[in-house]
Amino acid sequence: MDAVEAAIVVLEEDPTFDAGFGSHLNRDGRVELDAIIMDGATLNAGAVASVERVRNPIRLARKVMESCEHMMLVGTGAEQFAAAAGLPLCPPEELICEREKKAWAKCIQGDHLSEFHFSPQHGTVGAVALDMQGRIVAGTSTGGTCCKLPGRVGDSPLIGCGCYADIEAGGVSCTGWGEAIMKVVLAKSAADDLRSGANAQEAAEAAVQLLARRAKGAGGLILLDRNGHPGFAFNTPHMAYGYVAPDGSIVTAV
Amino acid sequence: MDAVEAAIVVLEEDPTFDAGFGSHLNRDGRVELDAIIMDGATLNAGAVASVERVRNPIRLARKVMESCEHMMLVGTGAEQFAAAAGLPLCPPEELICEREKKAWAKCIQGDHLSEFHFSPQHGTVGAVALDMQGRIVAGTSTGGTCCKLPGRVGDSPLIGCGCYADIEAGGVSCTGWGEAIMKVVLAKSAADDLRSGANAQEAAEAAVQLLARRAKGAGGLILLDRNGHPGFAFNTPHMAYGYVAPDGSIVTAV
Repeated sequence: MDAVEAAIVVLEEDPTFDAGFGSHLNRDGRVELDAIIMDGATLNAGAVASVERVRNPIRLARKVMESCEHMMLVGTGAEQFAAAAGLPLCPPEELICEREKKAWAKCIQGDHLSEFHFSPQHGTVGAVALDMQGRIVAGTSTGGTCCKLPGRVGDSPLIGCGCYADIEAGGVSCTGWGEAIMKVVLAKSAADDLRSGANAQEAAEAAVQLLARRAKGAGGLILLDRNGHPGFAFNTPHMAYGYVAPDGSIVTAV
Repeated sequence: MDAVEAAIVVLEEDPTFDAGFGSHLNRDGRVELDAIIMDGATLNAGAVASVERVRNPIRLARKVMESCEHMMLVGTGAEQFAAAAGLPLCPPEELICEREKKAWAKCIQGDHLSEFHFSPQHGTVGAVALDMQGRIVAGTSTGGTCCKLPGRVGDSPLIGCGCYADIEAGGVSCTGWGEAIMKVVLAKSAADDLRSGANAQEAAEAAVQLLARRAKGAGGLILLDRNGHPGFAFNTPHMAYGYVAPDGSIVTAV
């Protein structure tokens, strides 16, 4: 749990990615953040969506999981919970970086050209970890799409869509075109393949094929099966990913 | 699509059920509504959550599905979209009935006794329909739990959790303890059983067993397989349900 949270906090803080600080702006020029974390040992999850005053939504998602009777909070209600749970609220402007402000100013004219932005491999972030006790945790965090309507929620914070973890199956985190990922409930589909005994890499590839076949969508995912074998697949031009082996060595970093 | 929307509008308007007018109040004494509708032919869905000024959230969910680039909108953003799409906004007070106002006044003291409310069979509402062309549609609408924190989203409006439809599988709508239903992504799980060829009633019962086994949860679901065979199951004391056969006769009404 700590490893997934820490990894995602680093990515949220890095304006390279569309999560936390430096995320895409919505139609109204504001950053709206979504995140989820899920514990495969208990199937508990914490999720937040459409929060504008929380610098690290993955921390808030964890707070929801650990100290809220509910599993998902959205909007100002989620921010009220954050404040009550002791997480500092930030001014909304603090989440905006100059690059995205400029990109938004061009996009809002009507031409959402990808050249205004970093390319899709700088999108949604996620992490999956398995500890020595076999406890598997997955998490996902995003700023969503540029110029999205206020209140838009994509796949990322939705349990089974952008994230899923189950010690009987594995842990999965997805990125890509949210509405397509939602159509096939992608993370749960990949987890169910792992549950049925699929090889980790095969399960990842099958999930992307399902996304393309049934939802005509582009995206990708990272996963660990319940034994810690990794799988990565995507049908976008690129997806940045990495894998750290049990001995701490970095086996994959693309 | 019309049949599912119309059935759910009737149930939303009836204060007997925890959906639309007469829903449970949240901690702050306000009604917050969630709904989803999904088209199994395209896997498109429209979902809204945490809306306070829309009398029939299932109508708004359909508007999102049919005329929004996104699949899910929450909070004030969803209300802004409603207004822009021509759906009238209502004063929040219009959604409150006297019975729930009194129940809330007792619950907020700290004792959330079920005797303050109608029993759980008067909860979340849903409908599934199959037309002559084999197009299957499912929908779900709810007011959520009494005294929920503002912004809480349960299973109902989440694709794969409270609702799922796929012409290759069937259509499913769930009710019950939201956080438990979310853990096992219940509607998608039932649909996947149908996809694998399970009998409709067996798939419904297996889903409730999964809910009890993995999430220690109480709930129920209605479903139609892709050939129109119905299934109903629940592990709550009661669940109201009905089935209308292709010739228009009411076969089941409990």
